[in-house]
Amino acid sequence: MRILLASLLAAAALPALAQTAPPPPPQPSAAEQAYDTTLVARLRDAALSDSMAWEITEGLTTEVGQRLAGTEAEARARAWSVKRLTAMGFANVRVEEFAMPVWERGREAAELLGPYPQKLVVAALGNSASTPAGGVTAEVISFPDVAALAAAPAEQVRGKIVYIGHAMPRTEDGSGYGVFGAPRRQGPTLASQKGALAIVIRSIGTDREHRNPHTGVMNFAEGATPIPAGALSNPDADQIERILARGQRPTLRLTLESRVTQGRSGNVIAEVTGRDPNAAPVLVSCHLDSWDLGTGAFDDAAGCGIVAAAAKRIMEAGTPARPIRIVWFGAEEVGLFGGLDYRARHGKEPHHALMESDFGADRVWKVDSRLGAERAIEARRLQRVLQPLGIVPGSLTETDGPDIGPMLADGLPGASLQQDGTRYFDIHHTPDDTLAMVDRKQLQQNVAAWTASLAVLAGPVEQRPAAPRRRRR
Amino acid sequence: MRILLASLLAAAALPALAQTAPPPPPQPSAAEQAYDTTLVARLRDAALSDSMAWEITEGLTTEVGQRLAGTEAEARARAWSVKRLTAMGFANVRVEEFAMPVWERGREAAELLGPYPQKLVVAALGNSASTPAGGVTAEVISFPDVAALAAAPAEQVRGKIVYIGHAMPRTEDGSGYGVFGAPRRQGPTLASQKGALAIVIRSIGTDREHRNPHTGVMNFAEGATPIPAGALSNPDADQIERILARGQRPTLRLTLESRVTQGRSGNVIAEVTGRDPNAAPVLVSCHLDSWDLGTGAFDDAAGCGIVAAAAKRIMEAGTPARPIRIVWFGAEEVGLFGGLDYRARHGKEPHHALMESDFGADRVWKVDSRLGAERAIEARRLQRVLQPLGIVPGSLTETDGPDIGPMLADGLPGASLQQDGTRYFDIHHTPDDTLAMVDRKQLQQNVAAWTASLAVLAGPVEQRPAAPRRRRR
Repeated sequence: MRILLASLLAAAALPALAQTAPPPPPQPSAAEQAYDTTLVARLRDAALSDSMAWEITEGLTTEVGQRLAGTEAEARARAWSVKRLTAMGFANVRVEEFAMPVWERGREAAELLGPYPQKLVVAALGNSASTPAGGVTAEVISFPDVAALAAAPAEQVRGKIVYIGHAMPRTEDGSGYGVFGAPRRQGPTLASQKGALAIVIRSIGTDREHRNPHTGVMNFAEGATPIPAGALSNPDADQIERILARGQRPTLRLTLESRVTQGRSGNVIAEVTGRDPNAAPVLVSCHLDSWDLGTGAFDDAAGCGIVAAAAKRIMEAGTPARPIRIVWFGAEEVGLFGGLDYRARHGKEPHHALMESDFGADRVWKVDSRLGAERAIEARRLQRVLQPLGIVPGSLTETDGPDIGPMLADGLPGASLQQDGTRYFDIHHTPDDTLAMVDRKQLQQNVAAWTASLAVLAGPVEQRPAAPRRRRR
Repeated sequence: MRILLASLLAAAALPALAQTAPPPPPQPSAAEQAYDTTLVARLRDAALSDSMAWEITEGLTTEVGQRLAGTEAEARARAWSVKRLTAMGFANVRVEEFAMPVWERGREAAELLGPYPQKLVVAALGNSASTPAGGVTAEVISFPDVAALAAAPAEQVRGKIVYIGHAMPRTEDGSGYGVFGAPRRQGPTLASQKGALAIVIRSIGTDREHRNPHTGVMNFAEGATPIPAGALSNPDADQIERILARGQRPTLRLTLESRVTQGRSGNVIAEVTGRDPNAAPVLVSCHLDSWDLGTGAFDDAAGCGIVAAAAKRIMEAGTPARPIRIVWFGAEEVGLFGGLDYRARHGKEPHHALMESDFGADRVWKVDSRLGAERAIEARRLQRVLQPLGIVPGSLTETDGPDIGPMLADGLPGASLQQDGTRYFDIHHTPDDTLAMVDRKQLQQNVAAWTASLAVLAGPVEQRPAAPRRRRR
């Protein structure tokens, strides 16, 4: 009896996954079995040789480069995009502009004055306060994570420069960014509330070898005085931790200059006309702005290339049942301004599905969707056409995406082609986010997945009659 | 007859390697067969668990950091080294100082003003002239290699900023550094002679993905006016080349501030006493200085750790027949000043062998030596004891090493434990040369190789009697 009880308890301690027998695979209905995937498969497989996504990624990152939200560089990116999307033959190419505050970095430096004088590599976090000319100098006080900082008495922290470690691991689904992103999101407010002079965190990035500091936005909580806030590259964070492990109290001089102005951003919108122009569109999106350290190839020129290439491939094949609306959102990085502006203007309009590509350029490994119980056949069909690309079926009740997130939260339907995030946070928000990181084969697999998804979600494509051969005269 | 001639000609066109049947493996002499490798093998294999090389590498890069030749940072490194080598129990720890000119970098920036405005990542090359405040601005003229620049008429180049591509490939033996290093070594002089305002080259580094510009020394030829000279990271060089491939003429604003002063450097020397103190020493060396962008872990703190750890392991085992002289050279990077100073002071003294570890921290894959025909047995023995570490026998007539190079050219005997250079030029001279790049297992294999080499070259170790066990009272 005791043995039985012990083994029951042991079994109960196993994770839930191991407890549940997998559900039997759903049997496709007769209607679904009759669904002809021939055209979808043909469009999907042809997209594995796509060059348009690469050309857009290459063009945007070369001819514009970094595209910090609200700056003239992002405005140049919008002009570039309107020209490119128009040249590609999309309908109704337009910009919906909006005003926004703009934070821009200036001179940055971090230098240990003692016990071992040396320079460290640092980047300011978005919305960091500016240091005075000459920087701020103070002793470093270290915390392993935000919980430890939260628990520290204010008198320990006052007048010091807070350092938070908390190294983020790599994961395929990128889920480490939530909890390990806390030092960036909550650290500056907590440090400010306890009277710290400034804060530097270990980069919320998973490249442990290169000195590529990882920037990103943060916002001070209501009432907290903004302080200078930066991120050290992982090797520089290791250096600080080795010094602390010797029982030393490092003194840091930190210069993080920045300024805040008012600017304008905007969403660039283009369409593929559907057979029924009044049908709810399938929205496919990315964001056009980037962080300023790299050229935003992975984040998110590639996403813009993927969705536009897939829409163009559908348009070339013929006319889909529903319109496809391409949205290249502005000002995503600094607070989802583009997504919120779109929602304010169009969030009450029906959308057949919302989709966004914003997780780099590596292969799609899973598809999630939330189309509603009444559209289960469509959701299963989406899973089915993606399987030949090695994409596993995921959730039917959860989907995500940054700019489309608020609208998904409002209840609009959506689908997510989840990309392999293993190396995403090695690159994302660092100086190393350039075209050099983009793997063309994986980019093509993305286009194939998006093309197949659009062929399903935008409804049957009515093929154009083959163009008559011209005779030579 | 014609066919025979043709095939003879075809055969003659093959590389020499393919022509020659491999020589039969040498048969060890009876004396050599009787050589007892038991102790050497024991010392070698124990060194595979070495921690001293790591501790020195970690200590020097953490507690000093970058150690640019002739600066106060290099002086701190000498003080650190004297303390560490003394604490390790070596004899005659001393510094031999010398004066030298010091080049130090200041503010650096590269910005494309047109056709696509954006910032690029640049680092000045050692001995670059300083730009005026505000930098220099000019159109970029591009050349694929130095030969093309040399062939260009001066009127094409005058008043422009020269760019040279010539991307270096990875090789195990690092041999690409010779020919692909030409843009750095000869480019600035050629550009200056043709009236260029400045020069930027593609980094002589093999990391094509990260924005880590690769610095290194160059010297203007007699009579050439120094001009500003920098290196773009490989992704930034790709960016320039993509713009040029569009037929555009980019305009670059280049700021490379620097200054030249007088300073002092020095060689740190320590010894393991031999049974015959008058015997010619085995010299094992590295260089203590580093470039200023990283912390010089790969280049060359690891080398200093490797040679000191191996010497210490021999000393702990007992007393070798000959003295071992450890030299941590100063000011290698900027012109072999330390090696030349040592040669001036000691180059006429007999040395049993000169060795230097200065090619990173990755595994030894080959052993070369040049000990002279009369010491063939010793050379073969060296090859033999290294084979269990996966080290292939190399040349018996050629050896190398940077600081020891001039003395090797004078005819002194030497040996080289050749390290795997595949990723050496990804790291070397870039901001990414930090402890994060050092693989402890491969570092230990180096220590094992050096320990075995010293056990052979410094002669039989007379083992210390085992220390008597202390009784507990």
